[in-house]
Parts: sequence; C-alpha cells; structure tokens
Amino acid sequence: MRAQKKSARRSRVVVVGAGFAGIAAATTLARVNVDVTVIDRRNYHLFQPLLYQVATAALSPADIAWPIRGILSKQDNARVELGRVVGVDRQSRHVLLADGRRIPYDFLILATGARHAYFGHDDWAVAAPGLKKIDDATLIHQRVLLALERAEIEMDPRVQRSLLTFVVIGAGPTGVEMAGAIAELTRTALSCDFRQINPSLAQVVLVEAGARVLPSFSPSLSKRAFKALEALGVQVLLGLPVTQCDDTGVEVGGMRISARTIVWAAGVAASPAAKWLGVSADRNGRVMVSKDLSVDGDPNIFAIGDTALAIADSGKPYPGIAPVAKQMGVYVGQLIARRIRGKHRGEVPEFRYRDVGNLATIGRKAAVAEFGRLKLWGFPAWLLWAMAHVYFLIGARNRIVVSLNWIWNYVTLERGARLITGATEEGPEAEALDAITAAPPPRQPRAA
Amino acid sequence: MRAQKKSARRSRVVVVGAGFAGIAAATTLARVNVDVTVIDRRNYHLFQPLLYQVATAALSPADIAWPIRGILSKQDNARVELGRVVGVDRQSRHVLLADGRRIPYDFLILATGARHAYFGHDDWAVAAPGLKKIDDATLIHQRVLLALERAEIEMDPRVQRSLLTFVVIGAGPTGVEMAGAIAELTRTALSCDFRQINPSLAQVVLVEAGARVLPSFSPSLSKRAFKALEALGVQVLLGLPVTQCDDTGVEVGGMRISARTIVWAAGVAASPAAKWLGVSADRNGRVMVSKDLSVDGDPNIFAIGDTALAIADSGKPYPGIAPVAKQMGVYVGQLIARRIRGKHRGEVPEFRYRDVGNLATIGRKAAVAEFGRLKLWGFPAWLLWAMAHVYFLIGARNRIVVSLNWIWNYVTLERGARLITGATEEGPEAEALDAITAAPPPRQPRAA
Repeated sequence: MRAQKKSARRSRVVVVGAGFAGIAAATTLARVNVDVTVIDRRNYHLFQPLLYQVATAALSPADIAWPIRGILSKQDNARVELGRVVGVDRQSRHVLLADGRRIPYDFLILATGARHAYFGHDDWAVAAPGLKKIDDATLIHQRVLLALERAEIEMDPRVQRSLLTFVVIGAGPTGVEMAGAIAELTRTALSCDFRQINPSLAQVVLVEAGARVLPSFSPSLSKRAFKALEALGVQVLLGLPVTQCDDTGVEVGGMRISARTIVWAAGVAASPAAKWLGVSADRNGRVMVSKDLSVDGDPNIFAIGDTALAIADSGKPYPGIAPVAKQMGVYVGQLIARRIRGKHRGEVPEFRYRDVGNLATIGRKAAVAEFGRLKLWGFPAWLLWAMAHVYFLIGARNRIVVSLNWIWNYVTLERGARLITGATEEGPEAEALDAITAAPPPRQPRAA
Repeated sequence: MRAQKKSARRSRVVVVGAGFAGIAAATTLARVNVDVTVIDRRNYHLFQPLLYQVATAALSPADIAWPIRGILSKQDNARVELGRVVGVDRQSRHVLLADGRRIPYDFLILATGARHAYFGHDDWAVAAPGLKKIDDATLIHQRVLLALERAEIEMDPRVQRSLLTFVVIGAGPTGVEMAGAIAELTRTALSCDFRQINPSLAQVVLVEAGARVLPSFSPSLSKRAFKALEALGVQVLLGLPVTQCDDTGVEVGGMRISARTIVWAAGVAASPAAKWLGVSADRNGRVMVSKDLSVDGDPNIFAIGDTALAIADSGKPYPGIAPVAKQMGVYVGQLIARRIRGKHRGEVPEFRYRDVGNLATIGRKAAVAEFGRLKLWGFPAWLLWAMAHVYFLIGARNRIVVSLNWIWNYVTLERGARLITGATEEGPEAEALDAITAAPPPRQPRAA
C-alpha cells in the first residue's frame, strides 16, 4: 500500500538557493508535474551584477532585488521556504534546516552560490569586506561615505590622506567596476558637498596579482579597460599580490599603502554544499559534477551555478558568471522534466554552455564587451552593458527605476542613495558612530 | 585687539538637527552674512511623513531621505558636521559632541526632534517599536514580513493566528496610516505569494485610548476615517488604553489580544535638549520657548520644531507637525538675519503659525483633509494628500521615484521593497533568523 501511495504522489524537487541558477531551475519546472520547493536564507533574489552600484550609493537594495515569493507567486507548483540549510540526509532524502525542519526531496538541486575566499587569510575579512550580499554592499557603502565624513573633520593630514585612499583588491569584473565607481563617486558626485576636504583628492588603487585587469577578456580589451581606469584617475598596480591587510592599509609587493577603506574582490569560494553531501570539493569549495551536472554518481542530486565545478570541452571549468548559472538551471530543470515524462531512457544531452558574451563596465561612460570574435569598448560597449543589465533585471518596476536612476545620475552626476543608515542611531550604534568619527580604525560591527 | 578681531568675524549660527525645522532655518540663512553649521547624528534629512511607507514595504529608505550635504552643497556659508551632541556649554558658547569636538556658536538653534514616549513603560519599546527613524521603519518592515513567513510554516493554528495579528497602538495620523497600510499589504499585495496561509486572514487592530481616531481633525472627519479603516478590514478599538504590552500581545481594557507584531504610534517625547541647556521641560520633554522661540531668556538660543513647546494665541501648544516645524525654522532664520543686519532694535514680530491644513491618509484610496472650514475625504482627499507629499519631498529625483512607485503600486497592487535584509545573513544574524523562524517571540536585536 505504501508503494502504491508513493507512486501516486508527485515528485518533489527541492531547490536550495534562489540565485540565478536556482530561480532558472525552479521556473523551468513551472509546467511540469512536480512539487517545487525553493529554500533560501533570504526572502529575495539578488541581481548580483549590480551590487557594486549599491555599494557606491547609486542604487537602493530594493532596486536590484526581488522577493522570491513574488517571482514564483504565479507558479502554482512552487512554494518558498525561508530557512537556513545545515545539512542533507541522503539516506532518507531530506534537506535539514537550522530550526529543525526536514524538507523531503526526490530531486535535489543545490544552487547555493559563492562567498569570498581570502586564500587562508580569513582574518582579512574584517578589514577588507567582499561584495556578494546586500549587507556587504551596505557595509562598503557606509565605510566609503563615513571615510569622507571622517576626513572632513580630521586635522592630521597623514590620517586624512589614508581616509581618502580606497584600495580595491582583485581586478576581475567586480573589482574593476568597484574601482571605477568609487573613483566617480568621490571625484564627481561629492565634489560640492564638503568644505574642508576636496573629494577629488581621493585616491583609488586597484591591486591585482595577475599580469592584467579583466583576465577573462582578451588582452586587447584588458588594455582598453586599463586605459579607461587610468582616465578615471584609478591607480592600477599589476603583478603584485597582497601580502598583508588590516584596518590601516594593505601591503603589496613589499610596499605599504595606508588606506582605511579596502574592498576585497579577489576570490570566491562556494558555500558548504560539498560538506552537506559528504563529497569532496576543489580548493575553491566547488562540487565536482558529471556532464549532466549530477553529483557523486547520484542521478537525483545536482549542483549548479557557482556551487558546481563543471568542466567545459576545452578542459577548463566554466566561469562563475550569471549566464552560466542560468543555463545550468534551465538544463537541470529540463532534465528533470524529461525524466518525469518518462523520456529519461533515451540519450541525455550533456550540459554545454552557449556563450552569450562577456561584459564589464568601467565608470559612467566606458565598458568592454566580447562576443566570440566581436569586441566592443568605450561608450558603445557601455550602452550595450546598460541595456543588457536593465533587460535582465527581474521585474518591470525595477527596470523602470534602475533606468531612471541611471539616466538621472548620468545627467546630474548626483547620487540618489547616499544615506548612512544603521551606524548613526542611538544605543550601541551611536557608540559606533562616535568611534568612527573619533578613533582611527573603522571597525564598526558587521551588522551595523 | 581681541574685541576688534571678534567684531570683524562673521557670526556663527549652529543648527542641531537636520529635520524640517533645522533645514528650514539653515536654508533661510543662505544669503545672510553668517557661518552656518548644521550638526546631525545622521547624514540625511528624512521625510518622516512617508516613513510608514518604508515600514510597509512600499518605498525604499533612499526614496524619502536626502543627504544633508546634498541639500546644502550650493549654500556656500553652510557646513555640515556629522556627530552626536551630548551637551551645550552655555558659558563659553560651545556645542559639545560625543567624540570630544567643541563647536563654537553665537546663535544656537536646537531642532532635535522627537522620539517615542511610552508613558513610563519604556520596557514596552522592545515589543512595540515606534516609527521615527529609518531604522525603526526597517525593523517594523522586517517584523511584518517575517511574521508572514513564520505563519507560513507554523503548524499550531493559535500561534499562526497570533502571527497574523498586527496591533497598532495610537490612532493619530501615523497610527491610522500604519494600520491602513498593513491591512493593504497583507490583504492584497501578498495574497498570491503564500501557499499555506491566506494573508487575507491577517487581522489588523488599531487601539486608541481616546474617544475617536485622528483627534486633531474635526469629529465628522474622524468618523469618515473610522469608516474608511473598517472598509479596509481594520478593527478599531476606541476608548481603551493599553495596560500591558509584550512579545506575545497587548492588554487593552482588561482584554488580551494575542499578537506578535505591535507598532507604537501613541506618544512622542522631545530629545534631551532641555537637559543640555539646563532648563526645565514639560512632561513630553519639550523646552518652553518665548514668543520669539528663544529659550530661557537667552536671545541667542532657540528651540524649534518638536523640541519646542510654543503656545499659540488659543492657549494650546502648537502641534508637532511638519508645517509648524518648517515655519518655525524660517521664522528663526529671518529673526537672526534681521539682527545681523542691525534691524533688531525695532519691534520683533512674534512667531505665529499660518495654518496650511491637516492631512491624513487611510490606505490606497482614502484620506481626510481639513483646511480651515473646508473638509475633504475619500479619493479627492487622497489625491490632494499624494500631490502635497510628492511636492514637499526634497529633490526632484525622489519626487519622480516616489510618484512612479505609487502609480505602480496603485496599478499593480505590487510592493517594490519587500526585502528582509540584515536578519537573514550569516553570523549572529543567521542565528536571529533561526530564532525567528523557530522560537515564538520575534526578539531579534534592534540593529539587525
């Protein structure tokens, strides 16, 4: 009788993580005869490629994020569970949540994304926050604006200089975008707002251990990006690994840069999905997957997006970018759909990434873009970048608000979201403000 | 020589607080031969009348706030100091900041606003946060959304019911607006998003100790507001003071209402300006001012806005509303300008509030408005309310964004800013999320 009941019920697909990969998998299953459960620690899907604009006060968090329930509200076979996953019971097929809930699954899709990796220097995280979550962006945003505020009242010119020095570590797309945006924020948008300091004296340093910026692009575009950064006043240091990093600055190739605001954009590590499954991970924490993105020979467990280490035909792993994550989600959704429809006995196509191009922006006017052999740079590339990002933002409302904000900033050079919240209120946060404006190191607590 | 130097330098006007009153005073002095310093704990001016829309997920904080430096960037005689005032040295004429800075003044304008008063029950603050600051709004916003999330996974129908009960204490404009907005948020905007609960089962209770809602309006409009609230499904309890208030509910006139989300909109108290000056305050913490808004017979110290207890010709104190605060700021600015220009020997006009009307809104379609004898209600009043608030929002960008958001919400019934940030991240906040989704009382820390 039990077997009968089991065969009658619909298969349960559990998706952990509502990033690009997880949402793509869940929505691909919309018309399939399954029950989909999406579990996430946060109640929103985040458009990470624009997070640096929250960190530099151009956009509000709500402009680039969308409630998961809103995305799936019309999808009748989907439900959302807010919760923190702490493990997977593979024997009984349950996902375990921190509050004790156990979510049963027939198919499990792990799309838990990535966090920052400090290459064994986790103590650097306090001084040099990364940029993966909204709270990261809010923290960086707050540090940049408070550094300017502190510089305004600082009497010691050496300390003032260190407050006006911003170091970005890592010259991948995130690092390049952050460096360009900080340079613009400090040099143009704030130039009328202060009386003692001249924000155009701010120094932005981009440090990269490799030989060129944007290593995922072709060398000629790296060169153009380098020039665009220099035009914005960003000082680019190449071939110099960071050897030390604390509240007062960084050490780069034996040289010390005194800086109070440091942003980490150098490395990512996958979340602990490998640990939950009891499988091994590569040094970046990614789970090795088969050609069909299944894990550890188990045809019912998949890892996608930044969680997965999937090897392309070229022999290199697929990069951790949004288009790869989305295509992985769609692929696994379709694979499950085929199985449910009883078509899984035929040949299963392998996952293959269809290259949709590579884009990175440098400030308000320049970008680089690569589509196979086609290369674009300067303003045409920026226009393309802006259109692509607005297009991919989920939700028409966000599209309108983001477009308006950009047009507005472009025309007026103003910044709309320059609020320092959290750290400036009464209670313990007021103490934090006092500490920030008085004492040297900007060590306010993470949650402030 | 010292006297000579002193007569040569410009007078220093220090404004503490960048709310409606403080900003009005500072900008009124734009073309006057003085040095203006604006001190605030936060770096932004907040449009408080729309704060309840942040608390109910309709707007983002940046939509209703504006950096003080941005407001004053074109005013050459003004500078901004971010800092927390802890006292005033009246002898040497200095404002004292928490970090040890001493800001000298010739004229001092205290516009420090109001906080919540719990009428001797300060322990209620944790369970029933008020709505004065952006962080208050974020906290309430988070509690409302998390209550729905917890109800979705709650098995016990009694606990579920208490999670879906929202109590607003105090039926002044803020309380009425909050109650209406929560009713709409839960009943319409979220109605497709959940699978286990039906948000339309949510119960919103508005509790008022007095005999009618909106007591500052005429009785006929109170009646109309009452009906509009009932039409939205809000249960209004009149003539019932709250006698107890904790994490699990409130006690109203001997009756217990089990509720996990409580909002305090019942009383305000001025900030500690009286203590700084060493003068006495009324029971709401306001500083008694003369007819020219000066304090304690000192012609160089003024208190304005919610900080001031100014008596109208009617014998009643002026209410703590934005138009009064703005007019007080303009008045004091002009008074100082007259003195600087040497016209202070003539007759000084007393401060008199010019009534610009009274507005309050109830949900998405109704409002009440009173201009002297003219009374409006329903949709025409709402339209007027919307236009007035958009008009008074500082900064054209915010006007556009707020209008768009409203039009969008009105057309689609969607909510743009439904993100739960802060409490859902790693580290201590993740624990808070676990606690929220697992344990009964929503006692996450304030700063989360």
